[in-house]
Amino acid sequence: MAILFVTGVEDPATWVPALRARLPEARVYTEADAFDRREIEIAVVAAPRAGALRDLPGLRLVQSLWMGVDGLVADPTVPRGVPIARMVDPEMTSQMPEAALAHVLHLHRLHDVYARQQREREWRQWPQPLAGRRGVGVLGLGQLGARTAAVLAAAGFRVHGFSRSPKRIDGVETHTVLAASEILVNLLPLTAGTRGLLDAPRLAWLPHGACVVNLGRGEHIVDADLLAALDAGRLRHAVLDVFDQEPLPPDHPYWTHPAVTVMPHVAAQSTPESCLPVVAENVRRLAAGEALLHLVDRDSGY
Amino acid sequence: MAILFVTGVEDPATWVPALRARLPEARVYTEADAFDRREIEIAVVAAPRAGALRDLPGLRLVQSLWMGVDGLVADPTVPRGVPIARMVDPEMTSQMPEAALAHVLHLHRLHDVYARQQREREWRQWPQPLAGRRGVGVLGLGQLGARTAAVLAAAGFRVHGFSRSPKRIDGVETHTVLAASEILVNLLPLTAGTRGLLDAPRLAWLPHGACVVNLGRGEHIVDADLLAALDAGRLRHAVLDVFDQEPLPPDHPYWTHPAVTVMPHVAAQSTPESCLPVVAENVRRLAAGEALLHLVDRDSGY
Ligand SMILES: NC(=O)c1ccc[n+]([C@@H]2O[C@H](COP(=O)([O-])OP(=O)(O)OC[C@H]3O[C@@H](n4cnc5c(N)ncnc54)[C@H](OP(=O)(O)O)[C@@H]3O)[C@@H](O)[C@H]2O)c1
Ligand SMILES: NC(=O)c1ccc[n+]([C@@H]2O[C@H](COP(=O)([O-])OP(=O)(O)OC[C@H]3O[C@@H](n4cnc5c(N)ncnc54)[C@H](OP(=O)(O)O)[C@@H]3O)[C@@H](O)[C@H]2O)c1
Repeated sequence: MAILFVTGVEDPATWVPALRARLPEARVYTEADAFDRREIEIAVVAAPRAGALRDLPGLRLVQSLWMGVDGLVADPTVPRGVPIARMVDPEMTSQMPEAALAHVLHLHRLHDVYARQQREREWRQWPQPLAGRRGVGVLGLGQLGARTAAVLAAAGFRVHGFSRSPKRIDGVETHTVLAASEILVNLLPLTAGTRGLLDAPRLAWLPHGACVVNLGRGEHIVDADLLAALDAGRLRHAVLDVFDQEPLPPDHPYWTHPAVTVMPHVAAQSTPESCLPVVAENVRRLAAGEALLHLVDRDSGY
Repeated sequence: MAILFVTGVEDPATWVPALRARLPEARVYTEADAFDRREIEIAVVAAPRAGALRDLPGLRLVQSLWMGVDGLVADPTVPRGVPIARMVDPEMTSQMPEAALAHVLHLHRLHDVYARQQREREWRQWPQPLAGRRGVGVLGLGQLGARTAAVLAAAGFRVHGFSRSPKRIDGVETHTVLAASEILVNLLPLTAGTRGLLDAPRLAWLPHGACVVNLGRGEHIVDADLLAALDAGRLRHAVLDVFDQEPLPPDHPYWTHPAVTVMPHVAAQSTPESCLPVVAENVRRLAAGEALLHLVDRDSGY
């Protein structure tokens, strides 16, 4: 079994030795190696460049190390007949609710407001409701969103969730999400149906002074519309973990905006220890002709 | 029944009308009113100036609206024979664990590090352990500390607690607190035994790169020693909600220190709605000759 490891962003030095150790019977190549393209049956990828998977005639599986596979699904050079499996690993599904809770509590407790006051050496106290009087919206109730919504509800917030199909999560309401969200957390996948979802008209549904936490993909937000709403004071603060272009270019206005927190895509990071058992299991299933885990529906895009 | 309301910091306009509404049979005075000092039986106080309670020969109860009564206990002009009751109100005991969890998650998720990176437009990711691999210490396991420790443990942290007498709280260890605390939360009361507790030798027990969250009293920390440890990089960050002098003077180095978060004493604020039922209950008990709630032991100082 020959595996090609392709990444646009991760460090191969972290992943390739770990892949080789985990799959000792497989031949694992990087693009820098000399190998016969016809031999490759599995591509293990992390945000590969578009076109990187062309001319692999023996390809039987594209296994992503990332949970978000929007780039892969949108890449027309990935052969339609080849299944794409994404990563769903226990480490990431635990990391994301922690990151989301940290951001939501920070905004809920007005810590962004106090940080701005500190810059002005201003000592001023504001009324503080408890979490039970704070409406929080979660867009996307998938692998990450459902658990995040449950953790926020367990922390006492009034959580409103949003998905395509109806869902039942204890303590989570699923109507009127935007209007009820003083803090809005985005955990949608990036698809044709969700790209640019948070534009001026939809941001205008949020209550005055609301905050946005984007943990999904940069392209979910229309940056100019978000900046306009922040500049107008309609929205109070945005925490952004993901961006159209990553790393965020040094001249991007987000870096210096007083109402924007820039995070370098760290809400839920993959590690070889947590991902490779999932990869190994799918490799085993492919060899045994069993049903693969975490397959992506290329029509819906997630 | 005549009540004198005395405060050094709170706004009487918020409290006095609420006190009068809650205790319609009592006569409620402020220091600005004309009244006969001999008539006063109860002083309702919020951080009163030292000496404000002298010359009240009929005084039978000092009822604080604050949980911390270090100033009152230390004031030699408060007659020794008069009981001091402090505030223990459900709103504050819910607010404090929320505030502590917000600060601890922020530090745990390295959000202070990423905020500094944002100022430099630096895109850099760091390894992120889950809460289960993060040691958090809680100094003081009283009304606020015990519940805070339990909330931190429920959020998954490895919590180590510290009190005078042994305690059993689910999921909370009570040995080796300082050495195990990557994040240290102070919720001790200010007494002769705790003043200046966090000095250079004790801060040196914390692991390299640890963070301190002070939600108790400013005097628990030796400011010069904390600043030295931050400047040397021995400690990573300090979140300070309380200070020796409040409001924090404009020229204090904490305001502009890159490794210090200044909060204007807002972790758990009192409101008339949550406090006055407790005051009214103690007034009723005093009139009925019943045992008073939340009495302070003036010898131990808390
Ligand atoms: N920041 C980071 O570090 C990081 C790390 C990993 C992943 N991510 C991102 O996190 C996001 C969520 O990942 P996931 O694995 O939880 O996704 P997922 O399991 O695919 O969940 C998708 C959820 O979104 C809902 N949804 C999809 N299209 C929708 C639409 N048009 N309208 C309404 N709801 C829609 C789905 O509804 P149904 O339930 O009805 O199907 C489902 O609840 C992705 O954007 C991913 O890229 C970020
Ligand atoms: N930042 C804010 O907004 C805010 C708001 C309210 C209160 N506070 C402050 O929060 C702090 C905690 O208040 P609280 O009501 O929880 O206090 P408390 O109920 O009086 O609790 C005291 C705790 O500290 C322990 N303790 C006392 N002296 C000690 C010593 N020398 N060594 C070790 N442990 C000692 C006690 O141990 P035992 O259990 O063995 O007696 C007890 O567990 C106070 O400093 C208060 O001023 C801050």
